[in-house]
Amino acid sequence: MRIFIAGMDGCLGWSLAQHLTARGHEVAGADAGFRRQWVEEMGSWSATPIVSMKERLQALMQRTGQELRYWHGDLREYELVERVFREFQPDAIVHFGECPSAPYSMVDVHHAVFVQTNNIITTFNLLFAMRDIRPQAHLVKLGTMGEYGTPNVDIPEGFFEIEYRGRRDRLPFPRQAGSWYHWSKVHGSNNIMFACKIWDLRATDIMQGVVFGTRIDEMEGDERLLTRLDFDQAFGTAVNRFCCQAVIDHPLTPFGKGHQKRGFLPLRDSVQCLTLALENPPKAGEYRVFNQFAEVYDVTELALKVQKVAGELGLEVEVRNLENPRKEMEEHHYKPDHQHLFDLGYQPTHEVEAEMRIMIQDLMKYRDRIEAKRDMLIPDVRWDGRRKKVKFLSAEPELVK
Amino acid sequence: MRIFIAGMDGCLGWSLAQHLTARGHEVAGADAGFRRQWVEEMGSWSATPIVSMKERLQALMQRTGQELRYWHGDLREYELVERVFREFQPDAIVHFGECPSAPYSMVDVHHAVFVQTNNIITTFNLLFAMRDIRPQAHLVKLGTMGEYGTPNVDIPEGFFEIEYRGRRDRLPFPRQAGSWYHWSKVHGSNNIMFACKIWDLRATDIMQGVVFGTRIDEMEGDERLLTRLDFDQAFGTAVNRFCCQAVIDHPLTPFGKGHQKRGFLPLRDSVQCLTLALENPPKAGEYRVFNQFAEVYDVTELALKVQKVAGELGLEVEVRNLENPRKEMEEHHYKPDHQHLFDLGYQPTHEVEAEMRIMIQDLMKYRDRIEAKRDMLIPDVRWDGRRKKVKFLSAEPELVK
Repeated sequence: MRIFIAGMDGCLGWSLAQHLTARGHEVAGADAGFRRQWVEEMGSWSATPIVSMKERLQALMQRTGQELRYWHGDLREYELVERVFREFQPDAIVHFGECPSAPYSMVDVHHAVFVQTNNIITTFNLLFAMRDIRPQAHLVKLGTMGEYGTPNVDIPEGFFEIEYRGRRDRLPFPRQAGSWYHWSKVHGSNNIMFACKIWDLRATDIMQGVVFGTRIDEMEGDERLLTRLDFDQAFGTAVNRFCCQAVIDHPLTPFGKGHQKRGFLPLRDSVQCLTLALENPPKAGEYRVFNQFAEVYDVTELALKVQKVAGELGLEVEVRNLENPRKEMEEHHYKPDHQHLFDLGYQPTHEVEAEMRIMIQDLMKYRDRIEAKRDMLIPDVRWDGRRKKVKFLSAEPELVK
Repeated sequence: MRIFIAGMDGCLGWSLAQHLTARGHEVAGADAGFRRQWVEEMGSWSATPIVSMKERLQALMQRTGQELRYWHGDLREYELVERVFREFQPDAIVHFGECPSAPYSMVDVHHAVFVQTNNIITTFNLLFAMRDIRPQAHLVKLGTMGEYGTPNVDIPEGFFEIEYRGRRDRLPFPRQAGSWYHWSKVHGSNNIMFACKIWDLRATDIMQGVVFGTRIDEMEGDERLLTRLDFDQAFGTAVNRFCCQAVIDHPLTPFGKGHQKRGFLPLRDSVQCLTLALENPPKAGEYRVFNQFAEVYDVTELALKVQKVAGELGLEVEVRNLENPRKEMEEHHYKPDHQHLFDLGYQPTHEVEAEMRIMIQDLMKYRDRIEAKRDMLIPDVRWDGRRKKVKFLSAEPELVK
């Protein structure tokens, strides 16, 4: 299958490119290198030392014999997207060409505007190119479980059947996102749902949980194949950040009460699930939603697991809650469905603690890179608009270096 | 009250500016004149001969003695919005600074991108300026009943309380919009709802029905005070277009089966309702949704009313259904609530036929302007992407001039 990855230089893009190539698919990608710039703007870098896209492609060719086609450019330019579609004629498009950070979108009005317009425009460009050039292709769009927020009812996969005042209908499940970034993904979901309806396109909208992990099997043995792992306040996510904190003896930092529940999955499960979606496309006109995660955890529960695994590896770390820079519920009902991917054959790779062990061992090699950006581990972008470092909630200042 | 109207040069903006000024409010506005450009791009013009904003403001000063502050500029520029807020310190903001056309948004990828990004950026700029400069101000945002689409259940005002799998919650009512434009309004509603939640702003989101009418009382006796009335495929709406068709002996043209039901209200009711919202602001942090229309009608029912009223004025016209350029349900359940505005005192001005009579009499004066753009009355922007004039569904070609 010819698969085009929009945003191939990102954490998931580069991982999926390798996994799909290993499975015999013909992969091509495009990227403007924005993710590297955004992380740099936040003052940080990837814990794993990533090489340039040129070197990545060379390493992959040496490993697999496959030369991937790659366009360096901004997917907000329709002419670029059109050219890619005409030259590559994709059977499927994986859309990672979006800015994926909640805190980055909350910095100020310019960041809010950038994130939402970037994400809307790239999605539009792909949808129109599909309509006009590859109407039979399948769009796999990366959304987020964060689109749903934390309603007081169970969360279905995209749609639910309800009765209201004595009448019934199947309706899109209401979204209650928690940042301008998360809302940009809702806007995208809505636009894609409508495109499928009016143009008979087919799409899978992935409501992905929080991903963690440093590698997938395909990366073994060649450091140039590693994907990025961010730990800064904007692009680092919970487990990744906890593991980075553990290797430099920094307290693990749940926000607020720390009982936020989210769906989580290892990077290797993410590429497994995306591959299942790609290899089992929906029919023409179908817009389907997959909730993609392995299990639901409470954030503190995960911090304690990282603490335990780190301890087994000789790293003693504290868990210390931080003032919450976000405005979100810290204790809530959370019961999302995630049956669709299991029905397609999804098998979680292994226990979360096993993955954490691999991660911490990997990250210990890059201890100095993390230590150099220690300051990045305490957020200062607040949902109320202030830019001010949050404080630890309990008084044990001697633990803060 | 100091009220800032974003998009004051538009049909509603200019009408509301006059109505609020007459009621003793201090009004200021901004506009880039985009609406005039868009209609010109579509090859058309306003049936009513509108003068420049400079002449409008002069006429209003002669009528009322009030000199309105006006900024000519693009509300996508945050610096402009910031300057307006600092200089005028509004108590309320009415947001008409959006592109309001479904067909315009469906022209091609560039129009889709323009409409959604314009509408998102102007809304963001107002929200951030409120947060940083006037957090106590009240945002009145023009949305559309089209955000809801046509679900098979009743439509509440923004939110509904439901039971799902044995648990209850009050959730945003799911939106199922019917064009990129309508979705841009959903994106805006979502963004505003979130801003109220995280920043304690107050907003009224108006899900407005289809507006019709050539005037409000304040415009009597001075043609320079007239607001625009569009009849082209992109900016003309159902009743306005039917009335224009009637005065040039063009068939009245419901789309498809013509049994689409929508909420409708006269222009004078629209300014009445917006004023009620402004003069009865919500409390801090409250995001409320008003469904704003007088009555629900089936489109064919309205065409027949226009035909009848036109006949009484000596104009004999046919009703002939056109191939539907849109993808929408042509027969459906439709029962939206609209109690909130009635609770605040909304009183529909008069029967729809009385308003149609005034409109047709007004438009007869501008017969030549409509006749000159007769070709604009048959749409060619189709939801499937083709740009091709639609045809009459029945075979009576001799009626088409």
